[in-house]
Formats: sequence, structure tokens, C-alpha cells
Amino acid sequence: MVGTGPGPVDLICPRARDAIAAAQVVLGYRTYLELISELLRPDQEITGSAMMQEVERCSKALDLASQGRSVALVCGGDPGIYAMAGLVYQLARTEGQPVDIEIIPGIPALSACAALLGAPLMHDFAAISLSDLLTPWEIIERRLKLAAEADFVIAIYNPASKKRREHIKKAATMILEHRSPDTPVGVVTAAYRSGQSIQLVTLDQLAREHLDITMQSTVIVGNSRTFTWNNRMITPRGYEDKYAI
Amino acid sequence: MVGTGPGPVDLICPRARDAIAAAQVVLGYRTYLELISELLRPDQEITGSAMMQEVERCSKALDLASQGRSVALVCGGDPGIYAMAGLVYQLARTEGQPVDIEIIPGIPALSACAALLGAPLMHDFAAISLSDLLTPWEIIERRLKLAAEADFVIAIYNPASKKRREHIKKAATMILEHRSPDTPVGVVTAAYRSGQSIQLVTLDQLAREHLDITMQSTVIVGNSRTFTWNNRMITPRGYEDKYAI
Repeated sequence: MVGTGPGPVDLICPRARDAIAAAQVVLGYRTYLELISELLRPDQEITGSAMMQEVERCSKALDLASQGRSVALVCGGDPGIYAMAGLVYQLARTEGQPVDIEIIPGIPALSACAALLGAPLMHDFAAISLSDLLTPWEIIERRLKLAAEADFVIAIYNPASKKRREHIKKAATMILEHRSPDTPVGVVTAAYRSGQSIQLVTLDQLAREHLDITMQSTVIVGNSRTFTWNNRMITPRGYEDKYAI
Repeated sequence: MVGTGPGPVDLICPRARDAIAAAQVVLGYRTYLELISELLRPDQEITGSAMMQEVERCSKALDLASQGRSVALVCGGDPGIYAMAGLVYQLARTEGQPVDIEIIPGIPALSACAALLGAPLMHDFAAISLSDLLTPWEIIERRLKLAAEADFVIAIYNPASKKRREHIKKAATMILEHRSPDTPVGVVTAAYRSGQSIQLVTLDQLAREHLDITMQSTVIVGNSRTFTWNNRMITPRGYEDKYAI
């Protein structure tokens, strides 16, 4: 399981590159394989699959590995955060396949987006996915509510898809019950890829306006102390209280 | 601001390496500079500092940069997560220094530890630091309580220091009010470094036993569905409900 980070090859660590180079078979979601196409060789078996075929993809990787082939299953970002690492272990357990599994971590979307926004994740934070394909919406709502109450910075994964346009507005409205309307919010789309966009808005705008938020976006909602300066979104750690800076 | 990930140079992305190579001055906490010593050259000005000198270190980096020098401020893990990114922006704002700041993200400790444990972060999670140097303990307790109630997987940073031995037990006791005593807990110390250790225990053990937890440890507490298999800690994403795997 190889994490390839946000996209460009110079944000992929050498250990991940080496694992891809050493693999006889490379599997992954088509979009991620395209991003790393320069790392792939004609002598490798490359299988790109569509979205929503996660179970087939992971099963195939395990099958091939159990036949003795070396397989790299590529994940954008970090394999361990809303990606395939868990599913591979679950399938390996169910199928009882004696396969060596190694996870090579990558730069997750939340780190990539935070770096482009400034320093929004400098204090305690929660990561919440708005996708209700695998998680009941009531659980997502409950987590949003409690995360808002706890004053966590909130990194929202899967804020929208073609079918889910209103969930992010609903989420913002719930967070507004515990946080000021002018709380800074960063929306990063296609981080470090072509078409990258960075929007700095307020929580009120997120709840009311129809912003350009897609499947490639991550949304970071500041905590009660997050501020903006010079087009950056910054959450203080607490040095200002202790050292009067 | 350059993120160097958990430690070994093959987990540092090329963009970070290039930034270090291009810098005239490299600053950082001494331990992190030692880990990347093979990337440093005799013609570079290298300044390692002790812990707790964050304000001095970041001020110096900004001063040198405002004098026109190219400076790499090195952070272990990701500069944007409990590291120096926020402080640098805060100081730049206070001092009004016209400096170009770029953050190059790195693999954060939570990703590195998750990869070694299996797949514990596969569903919504919270990151909470137990250090009460800059945050009042009451705020930390409140966040632990609400994160436990929300059934977040919880990644605990700074679980212990020489002076703080009991905080992690207190935290575990609070989480126990909302979660089963046999909830899986992973303790990773010195991830990907020499002396690495991985302990898989239960929440009950974390609350009661004196485990080997140091300043170099990160603790990951599972959610209500996290299980262990084959010495790995796995949080399901929900595929098992939908596809009956």
C-alpha cells in the first residue's frame, strides 16, 4: 500500500517511489495512476480502476500477492486516512490470505491543504468525511456537532460530490451553532495539481453561498481563535499567551 | 518551513530535500537536524537549538530571511501539525517582516504511527495534544470528553514527558466513560527511528498500567468498532456493512 501524496511526484517520498519501481503489478484508482504515470514502466502490469470499485481493486491486489507477485496498491494522499489500508486488512482477514502487507505513508490531503492555506491545523483538530455512502448521515451530524462544541479545527473530507451538493451547507449551519459567523474557512481544491484553487471565506459564507466545492476539495474550518492575515489562515498554538508575542 | 517526516531520509519528499539543499541557512530542533545530517553541507550555516526555544528559533529564521538569506526551518513530521508553521506566521505578523514564507508539508506523526499499527485512522478522528504548557488542562479534558462521546478515533500527541507521567492515564480514564475497556490502543514510540517500539494494548491497560510512553510516543485510541487482527489495529470504514465482506 503506497501513499503518493497530493499529486506531484516531488511530493512522493523515495520509499514510496522505490516500492512502485519494485512492483510487478501496480493497481490504483485511475486518476492517481495518471498523476504518477512517469514513475510507471512498460514491463509492469498496470491496472487502473474506476471510483467505487474499491473492493474489487483490493481483492485483486491480495489475490495477486497471494500468488507470489509483488504488488503496489497506490493511494493518493495517505493510504491510512479515508483510503484503502483498512479495506485491505479486512479482506485479508476474511479471505485468510497469507500475504505480507506493508503500508508506506504519504502526505495526507489535510497536510497538503493546510500548507497551502497557511497554518490552520496548529491546534487540536478533527477530520470528518461528509460522504454518507458508508456512514449514516446521523453519525456524521453527531460528530460535526460535538467537534464544533469541542472547538476543534475541523478538516472536512469529501465535502461534495455530483450528487451531494447541500451536505457542506448543512454541516456549516450545524457548526455555526457553536462558532462565530466570521470564523475563517479555507477551501482547497486540487491541492498541488493543475487547476488548484484556494478560497478563504467565512463560516457564514460556507453555510449560505454556493461556493465552488468539488470532489477534489478539502474544507478546513478554523477554531474560535483562528484568524486570517496576509491571505493566510492561522490557528495560534498558545505562544502568544505565554510569551506575549 | 520544511517537513522532514518521521525521521529516515527516504521518508522525506524530494521537494523538501531540494529546499534544504537550496538553503544558505538551516535551522531546527537539534534532534531533527541530527536525523537529516546526511542532507546538510559544510558550506551551509547550520543552527540546531534545544527544545522549548521555538520563539527564538522562528524569530531568527525570519530575521535572516528578511536580510535576504534563504532559510530552511526544519520540522520533524509536518510543519503544520503541532509544529512551527503557526508561530512563524504569528511572528511575521507581529514584526511586520516582508518575508516570503512557503510551507512544504511532510508525513505527520499520526500517519507514520498509523502505518506501523495497521489501519487505525480509517474513519473520522481527532488529534489532541496532552501538553498543558500552552493549553489549559481544562480545555484538553473537555476535548477528550467530547471526542470520546463522538466516537472519534483519537490520536494523542505529546502523551507524556519527564514531568508529565500521569496525564495519559487521566486521559484514558476519561475516554473509558464512553468506550469499552477492551478498545484497542496503539502506542508507537520513535516511529521509523532507531529504538522504534510498537505496543498494542487495551484502553483499560492504558488507564491502569504504567506503559513505556515517552516524549517520542504517539498514542492512537480506537473507536467503538476498531478491532485487532494479526497484530494489527484496524478501524473499519463501513464496507463490511454495505458489501457484506
